[in-house]
Amino acid sequence: MLNEYPLDRVFTLIEPGPTLLVTTAEGRKKNIMTITWSFAMSFSPTFGIVTGPWNHSFAAMMETRECVVAIPGVDLIDRVIGIGTCSGTDTDKFKKFSLTAKKAREVGSPLVAECLFDMECKVADHIEDRGIVIRECVRAWQNPDRAERRTFHAVGDGTFIADGERFDLRREMASKLPIL
Amino acid sequence: MLNEYPLDRVFTLIEPGPTLLVTTAEGRKKNIMTITWSFAMSFSPTFGIVTGPWNHSFAAMMETRECVVAIPGVDLIDRVIGIGTCSGTDTDKFKKFSLTAKKAREVGSPLVAECLFDMECKVADHIEDRGIVIRECVRAWQNPDRAERRTFHAVGDGTFIADGERFDLRREMASKLPIL
Repeated sequence: MLNEYPLDRVFTLIEPGPTLLVTTAEGRKKNIMTITWSFAMSFSPTFGIVTGPWNHSFAAMMETRECVVAIPGVDLIDRVIGIGTCSGTDTDKFKKFSLTAKKAREVGSPLVAECLFDMECKVADHIEDRGIVIRECVRAWQNPDRAERRTFHAVGDGTFIADGERFDLRREMASKLPIL
Repeated sequence: MLNEYPLDRVFTLIEPGPTLLVTTAEGRKKNIMTITWSFAMSFSPTFGIVTGPWNHSFAAMMETRECVVAIPGVDLIDRVIGIGTCSGTDTDKFKKFSLTAKKAREVGSPLVAECLFDMECKVADHIEDRGIVIRECVRAWQNPDRAERRTFHAVGDGTFIADGERFDLRREMASKLPIL
């Protein structure tokens, strides 16, 4: 069961830099890819990822102008790496990695039911010479049923770091934050 | 004592999404700011941060086309938050937060001796309407003497997450990685 997640908190899902899954759909053909280069850029539900034609999903994403960005917990790390090291050209990755594609509300791309969060996104801009795609999240979902809540960060050399100790500096930062 | 850090590994410092410090110098006036919106974008030592005229350091950075990007350990978290919640217009932040400005090799902006890593950068591009500044790192340094090696990730709501458990999937990812 997925609960709706407030759009004004979406940037807090991207800002820490977790490894992401991105789904697309082209007609009935759905695909999923792993993305580790992403960034928050404001307090609005607008954020960037770096991708390009070297990813099979890129063409579908740019043609439909839609995608779902999902955040996996660290219990899914082996599947996320598997997704990132094979290609949708010859593989049904949802099937191969036993992931559940769930119908989204605003876009044709599927939600990934096993993830902690799913963000339904429209492509807002494409800075082609830098490979930057700006997304606007139009609806977001939280999965409260996953026991493993830690996300994980790609280092880029084949190692990954899961979330560790949390620090609460809300009082010290009050002057710089929107109301949250 | 700082050791030189290989440029072809610089993207692995940015990709996990740590909270950053960015220093600038304008003549003899140096400044330092906290940046949490950043991203890796290739296997080269080129990466992006999101900033703009709302940051006091921005003018100096764009005028000199230089800065140093430093990665603090979580032992510096209170100082990093303090730096992010006051302004260089009326504060000598190096003095206020007891940080040591060390001379860089290639740029006029100072290194932060207490950080884990320091990257001397040139401004390579400015995507003004999105507030994205692309940097090219021209020399990087590692500080092996800090006992606390965990970096920390900003959530954006005043809470922060330190690095936790590490996972080694280098074998599984071998096909997708440059030689590291």
